[in-house]
Amino acid sequence: MDKLLVVKIGGNVIENRVALLDFLKDFAALEGPKILVHGGGKEATQMAKKLGVKVKLIEGRRVTDAQNLNLITMLYAGKLNKTIVAQLQALGCQSLGLSGADGNSILAEKRPVKPIDFGFVGDLKTVNNSFFDLLLKEGISPVCCALSHDGNGQLLNTNADTIAATVAASLSNHYEVHLLYCFEKNGVLKDLNNDNSIIPSLNESDYKNLKTKGLLHTGMLPKLQNCFTALKKGVKYVRIGNPKMITESGTYTQITN
Amino acid sequence: MDKLLVVKIGGNVIENRVALLDFLKDFAALEGPKILVHGGGKEATQMAKKLGVKVKLIEGRRVTDAQNLNLITMLYAGKLNKTIVAQLQALGCQSLGLSGADGNSILAEKRPVKPIDFGFVGDLKTVNNSFFDLLLKEGISPVCCALSHDGNGQLLNTNADTIAATVAASLSNHYEVHLLYCFEKNGVLKDLNNDNSIIPSLNESDYKNLKTKGLLHTGMLPKLQNCFTALKKGVKYVRIGNPKMITESGTYTQITN
Repeated sequence: MDKLLVVKIGGNVIENRVALLDFLKDFAALEGPKILVHGGGKEATQMAKKLGVKVKLIEGRRVTDAQNLNLITMLYAGKLNKTIVAQLQALGCQSLGLSGADGNSILAEKRPVKPIDFGFVGDLKTVNNSFFDLLLKEGISPVCCALSHDGNGQLLNTNADTIAATVAASLSNHYEVHLLYCFEKNGVLKDLNNDNSIIPSLNESDYKNLKTKGLLHTGMLPKLQNCFTALKKGVKYVRIGNPKMITESGTYTQITN
Repeated sequence: MDKLLVVKIGGNVIENRVALLDFLKDFAALEGPKILVHGGGKEATQMAKKLGVKVKLIEGRRVTDAQNLNLITMLYAGKLNKTIVAQLQALGCQSLGLSGADGNSILAEKRPVKPIDFGFVGDLKTVNNSFFDLLLKEGISPVCCALSHDGNGQLLNTNADTIAATVAASLSNHYEVHLLYCFEKNGVLKDLNNDNSIIPSLNESDYKNLKTKGLLHTGMLPKLQNCFTALKKGVKYVRIGNPKMITESGTYTQITN
């Protein structure tokens, strides 16, 4: 089986123009089939303020009403996605920006309104493997933003980490998939205040122990759950680390079963 | 050669949700290879006001500065393009939204700053025929917004009529291309106040006569010039009419050489 890299880049790297361009240079230089999944960043919140769109939170989690979905669609599928694709083209990387509706690439269903109505949020159902395969075989790198669709005309907000894990898992039938989560830290840290306290390797039982002891940052929990799910569904290896990890010169935590 | 339909839909149809959905139903039902090109509409102006982005005009024509380009990218490539693609998927039409950067589909160069600096506006250079061909052969309908790129990382604002004509002309080496410009009128009208005064057929010498006599709406002049250019470059036929024209039940003006 051919090797396939699925790389997720977090919102905080996207917000930093220099860091983003640096990352895109490394991504463009990678050989072989590759997919980029990008998060959103804080611009959605800033723009919501400017436009007078209210951001509603329930239990600390954002609710995606129609106005917020519009905003996210403009920023993620519009500005961010196209800026990234234009930069990749300039770097000689033939790439193609996608929402889940494009090519029917990522199908989801709207999350049930009970117990909590999070609005237009999508739980993933199906990845269109043959569409991704068509692009990859032509040397085209898909660039996915954090939007899926329900097949009935509705776009849905979906966590970019989950999109990366689900696409990686789905394509592991066709490829030997390596899933890399790049973010602003050097890996999963023992001590959030010490950037060098990288945990070299983390399996699910370590994860449960650390979680029980409250030693993991809450933002890390869903990311790690995505990692374990991906591994169980056939992804060859998963790493969480800084953007330089894709050139093998960065640092990371290897996630294992 | 296979027949290929290139359909341009104007901004005023896009602003009307019912008219847009009605049009998309007809477009989805069309058989064979087809490409949709869509305009922008007035939302860019409305949103510019809300965000405090100034719209500068020179000789009645909009100048695309960096802020306006951002806005257009969010609306055209984001909200409008993804809304259309999600609707087409719901109607069973496998489609894929594109800016000119996506798949390096439409390459342009920034218009020279002299005599007038219109900002980030692109004059078209190359259409990536093999990329369009790959999609069309797979039964995927490209949905193009009014953005090109310069290959050096810069997105550029480009008139949607010109994109439609240029894509149609370029693909006429591979296909028998029919180019249809759909807008809110029933065709090119003799009398703008009479919707039934459709000119059934118009050639370039008719055009020059009417233009000299000042009998054509100024908005129609660049559209007609795009039509004649497309015909000269091998497009089989060109029509300007209402959206129902794509089902053969609408009215139109046939443009001929």
